[in-house]
This record gives sequence, structure tokens and C-alpha cells, in this order.
Amino acid sequence: MSLIVQKYGGSSVADKEKVFNVAKRIVETYKNGNSVVVVVSAQGDTTDDLIEKAAEISKHPSKREMDMLLSTGEQISISLLAMAIHELGYPAVSLTGWQVGMETDSQYSKSRIKRVEASRIKKELDHNNIVVVAGFQGINKYEDITTLGRGGSDTSAVALAAALHADLCEIYTDVDGVYTADPRIVKNAKKMDEVSFDEMLELASLGAGVLHNRSVEMSRKYNVKMCVRNSMNDHEGTIVKEGKKMERMVVKGVAHDLDVARIALVNIEDEPGAAFKVFSLMAKHNVDVDIILQSIGRENKKDISFTVKKSSLDVAKKILEENQDLLGYDEVKVREDVAKVSIVGAGMVNNPGVAAKMFEALYDAGINIHMISTSEIKVSVLISSANVEKAVNAIHDKFELGK
Amino acid sequence: MSLIVQKYGGSSVADKEKVFNVAKRIVETYKNGNSVVVVVSAQGDTTDDLIEKAAEISKHPSKREMDMLLSTGEQISISLLAMAIHELGYPAVSLTGWQVGMETDSQYSKSRIKRVEASRIKKELDHNNIVVVAGFQGINKYEDITTLGRGGSDTSAVALAAALHADLCEIYTDVDGVYTADPRIVKNAKKMDEVSFDEMLELASLGAGVLHNRSVEMSRKYNVKMCVRNSMNDHEGTIVKEGKKMERMVVKGVAHDLDVARIALVNIEDEPGAAFKVFSLMAKHNVDVDIILQSIGRENKKDISFTVKKSSLDVAKKILEENQDLLGYDEVKVREDVAKVSIVGAGMVNNPGVAAKMFEALYDAGINIHMISTSEIKVSVLISSANVEKAVNAIHDKFELGK
Repeated sequence: MSLIVQKYGGSSVADKEKVFNVAKRIVETYKNGNSVVVVVSAQGDTTDDLIEKAAEISKHPSKREMDMLLSTGEQISISLLAMAIHELGYPAVSLTGWQVGMETDSQYSKSRIKRVEASRIKKELDHNNIVVVAGFQGINKYEDITTLGRGGSDTSAVALAAALHADLCEIYTDVDGVYTADPRIVKNAKKMDEVSFDEMLELASLGAGVLHNRSVEMSRKYNVKMCVRNSMNDHEGTIVKEGKKMERMVVKGVAHDLDVARIALVNIEDEPGAAFKVFSLMAKHNVDVDIILQSIGRENKKDISFTVKKSSLDVAKKILEENQDLLGYDEVKVREDVAKVSIVGAGMVNNPGVAAKMFEALYDAGINIHMISTSEIKVSVLISSANVEKAVNAIHDKFELGK
Repeated sequence: MSLIVQKYGGSSVADKEKVFNVAKRIVETYKNGNSVVVVVSAQGDTTDDLIEKAAEISKHPSKREMDMLLSTGEQISISLLAMAIHELGYPAVSLTGWQVGMETDSQYSKSRIKRVEASRIKKELDHNNIVVVAGFQGINKYEDITTLGRGGSDTSAVALAAALHADLCEIYTDVDGVYTADPRIVKNAKKMDEVSFDEMLELASLGAGVLHNRSVEMSRKYNVKMCVRNSMNDHEGTIVKEGKKMERMVVKGVAHDLDVARIALVNIEDEPGAAFKVFSLMAKHNVDVDIILQSIGRENKKDISFTVKKSSLDVAKKILEENQDLLGYDEVKVREDVAKVSIVGAGMVNNPGVAAKMFEALYDAGINIHMISTSEIKVSVLISSANVEKAVNAIHDKFELGK
């Protein structure tokens, strides 16, 4: 008998039929002799509807009150899903974030899980109940409701799997697993059977979009074996687990991300602390910076370019302009028509030829590279967003990932 | 400085404008130097929408899961109302039933409040916060969410007022207060300035509809002074408090109730225990019985008639039919076209002439009386529902309540 944690996203429980589809899947797992803990998100558009309700009242609602409001979405899903499981004739009990002891820090709207006090869940499992848990939410030390921010339900599922020492954490979504590239763009993209935590982390943060990187980071930390599967079919999915050391180079997949904007500070003073000043300002205002490129200085001036999410662009630009005197640059240049394309694979670090092969593919396709960034297991380039489809296909073909 | 508990029903917070209207009212009370605790119901049709969602999944959903589901309605209201108060520039914090320590028994869907562990509210009041509490909900000893059933938010408000030793518990509704009769039926019905707990209890249970009797019972028990007021204007409302002993007869108001059905068991065995058998069966199946009338027996047979709520009629009839052998009657007769009309007033018990005066008014109006029931402070009659308007007006005039 295994203990399995399953997570279903909002689209998987959007209406009555889908709720029953998920309930049947859960019951199948339970009937096979497993203990089952299910984590669910809010149904379909519920969260958006609630956000809209708040927006009618206030342009900048209190984050505490937003968490109080938004956490009702998951509470609705869990009760309906438990009812559906009952309707199929099986025992189930729904539990909110505070009921399962999902203890978080005190930050509202994007809190972090500190620990899971899992005694209530264990008791319910001992009573042979299927336990249906509200994802995305927790409770802080003031006994106030918190929410975990983007990808929160995945993180809830992994945290529960870790706390309960589950044998597997299944993340159900609307695709069959993790692909070598986005199947909407690359026709012969292949589903991977297995991917390591490190690779998945890069794929997640690079815009592959299946798993949020917070959940993958937590899986890696607690060594929780995950499986990404399609809630609408019985395909095997992709296993995400601790990777073996790779001897030969393996490029696992090509990821792309259109949610990128580039900012360039032209003619900034070439003196110690220039970069520090820029990026500490960004950090202070919670602007996540990704690729950074600094030109070689001449005549005591240099250029600093970096990328941010499109949603952070306005804030970033405003901060930079307000601090022009402090930073001492001539001009801020901004480009939004850019995209990031990356290859990911463990063992890449020992194979310098990999990056060259990627650049060759882009050169052959006539695509200009604006910025380059590398890490142990990935190589990213910034290109014009118009070239994304061509670039991803060219790289996918070059590395023969479809075979 | 006073501590005031205010309760607003679902129609008072049905949309953005109404939420702000309520917020302004709360802020006015707060600005006048009072500590304010606000109890809110779910917005407008929210509860019905949630019930519908559950009905799509299951015809007989688990009561525990229904409470989990329905309690989200109030959680949405409190967060939105707190945001609106913030928007007006005042401090507010929303709290759910479990956060305010509203401890109930373990019965789902109509649980009873056992105690209020009010330390969290007190702390928030000490920090000068306006505290916005979700009505209708509590938590049981298993740490599961419960709901209080009909009139639950009124009861929440009174329980909090009692626990906090509040100076006043204001119940906001869509009428100006408690009337001598239903103003929609009796044109010269007068708003009462004051009514005793006992009188209010009879008026509530007799279908005056402004306050639920559970909340009035609790007010009386803990001597919580209440005020029924209109959320859309500044009229004084009706004070409900401990009554002074009345020397002379005072008929306070005329109530009517259309949610009544009459059941008659014809030719039941006239032997000891006949009534006991009938009404213990009703009690066992949670059928509330109101007026009971037993005919004088002849030839070892008698008739037993009683009234129930229309919603209980089918259940009651089924139980009686299933137990025909046990009870030994010839026939069950049912009438739904009936209504109860009552006069209420402390001191009535010492004035036997009051009932006669009521019957006279009905006689003058040509209205036939089916059943009669009296208590210390009320006289009720069952009549044809078609005659309700005429009856209430005739009685109202007879006792000169409009003057």
C-alpha cells in the first residue's frame, strides 16, 4: 500500500462533469489499495471573479483581506469534490489550509510554508478517509489565513507529500507531461519519461509552464518523487526525481518565455558599485531580474542591460528614472518585443560544445542573439519575440530531440 | 465609550454600493467614539448559488461538507466589507467563525453555540480595529466548520454581544423596526419604540419575521439589549430589552404566519398514550409541531389535529401513514390553505377579556376560526389563508394599535 498525493488544478475541477472525472480518478487510486491525499485549486474562473469583486471595492485592497477572500475559492472546490467522492460511494473529508496545519510565514499573498502539522490528516487517513485539501492556502502565527501566491497549490501538494513521506506526488494538468519543447510550437516535441529536479527547475523557471519552480525546489529539498500527468487520460506522464550523475551531455528540452522585457542603462559611470546600486534598487522593490549583461567599459562609461518580467517593467523603469542622479546614466532604453529561448540538460557544464551547437542552429536560421546567459545545466539566449517559433524548432531539430 | 455589536443581513451587503453604505454606517458609529464589532451574512444570493452548486453534485450532500461550502459566503462578505472600511480610511480586520472562537456543538447545518472564546476579538478591539465577523458559522470540537442554520447571523451577533458584554446589539434589516402588524398588510401599522424579550419571542415565532427566535431567546438569557433598525435610514428603530411587569393589559402587535399546514388524524383510538405516540414520532423526525387540538372523545375514538410548517408536511404525512397500524386511526386529512394570526402582549394572562375581544373582531369580519391556542402573552388562531389580510386589519383596528 502506498501513500499518494494528487494535485488537481482549477481547470480540472471547473464544472460538475470535471469534478466527477477527478473524483473517479481519485477513487480508482483509492480502490487500488492506496491512501490518497488530494490537493485542489479553486474552480475555473473563481479566483478571477473574486479578484474582480475586490477590485470593485478597492484599487489596492489589503493583502490580508485578499487572502481571506481568495482562500474561499479552494474551500468551495474541496467541499464539492468531497461530495462527488461520497456520491461515488467512497469516504472523503475536506480540509482547509488551517485544518491541515499548513503553517506559513506572516507574509500575505505570497507566503512561504514553514512546516506542516499533519496530525489531522494522519488521523483522517487512519480512518480510511480520502483527504481532500485546499491548496494555495495556509495559516500564519497570528492564526490568519495566508495564500502562497503563484503555483501555490503545487507547493501545497509537495509540502504535504514531504510531511507525510508520501511515495509519490502526482501533479495533474492538461498536458501529458513535460515535453522536449512546447508542443504547440514544435510539432515533433516529445514527452519525456523522466527528468531530474535540477533540469525541471530550469525548465520551470524558463517558461515551460507545467510546474512552478517553487514546488520543484521543495521537491528537490525533501526528495519528493513527482509525476506530471494529464487529468483527462491515463498516459504515464513524466517522472520528476533526483537525477543520476550524467557522463555524456544530454540536452533534455528547449524552453521559451515570452514574458520578458529588456532594460538597458546607457553610459552608466564605470566605477565600483554601479551594478550593486542598480540591482539592490531592483531587489528592494521586488523586481526579479533575470539575464544581466554588462558591456566592456570605455572612457569611464559602460552599459548595463538586464531582463525583467513584462509585468515588472513599469515599476523598474520608474525606479531607474527616479534614481538617475544616484546611478549616473544617460538614458534608459526599453524593449518589450523580446523572448528568451533556452536549452536545458544535466551535464551540460562539461560540454562546452553544446552552447556552440545552439548558436549554430540560430545562425543557420538567420536569428540574431541579443543576450546570452549560461548556468550549469542551461544556456539561454534573448532574441526577438518574432523569431521564437523558428528558433525553438531550429534548436529542437539540431539536438534531435524529437527522435 | 460604548461597545456596540452591529449585524447586517445579506441584502444589506448585496452589491458594491450597499457594502459602502454599510461601511459608512459602521465608520459613523466608530467615529462617535464607540468600539464596533460587525457581524455580516453572505451577500445577496451567494448562499443560494452555493446550494445550487452542491445540488448539481449530490441530492443529499454531507452536512459537514455543506457547512464547509456555505461558510465561504460569509467569508467573502467580511473581507469585502473590511476592504470598504479601509477605503474610507479606517482600520478594520475581518475574522471567520473559527477565528473568533465561536464554539458550537458537533451538529452540522444547525449547530448551537456553546461558548465564545473572545480573546482574539478583544485583542483586535484593543488595537482600535473595527472587527468584522462572519455570521452564521462556528467551529466544533473536531475543529470542523459548522453553520448555525436559519437566523444564524442574528444569533452570532447576540452571542458576541453577550460574550463581550456589549452595551447594545443592533440588528440592521430592511424595515424600520418591529411593527404592531405587517405594514404590507395593515396600512396604519405602527412601529413600536420598545418591546420586551418575551413579546418579541412570540412575535418572532409567530411569523413577524424580523428577528429569529433563537437570537431573541439568547438575548433574553444573557440580557443583551437589542435594537432592530433599518440599514437604509437613520430612524430610531425598536429596542428589545427586558420587560417591566405590566399592570394593565397591553396588546403589542398582531402577527401572522402563512407557513402553516394542518394535519388531522381522524378516529384515532381514545386510549392513554395516543397523543404521546403521535408527537414522539414527530419529534424523532425533527418535525416541529405548533398548535395542537384534540377533540373530545366518543365511542372510544377521537380526532387529533395539529399544525406544522409547510416544509415539514410531506415528511409528517409519510411518517403518520407508515405508522397507521401503530397509531390506529382511520384517515389523515391535510389542509395547506390555512394561516395563523396572533396577538401578542405581556400581561395578557391577567386579562381574559383580550381573547374574547380578538374573537369578536373576527366574528364581526365574518371569519371562521379553525383552531385556538393561547399562552401567557399571546393568543393564536388558525383561519383560512384567504382571510389573513382581513383578519389582521380587523384585530389591529379592534385593539386600536394604529393610534
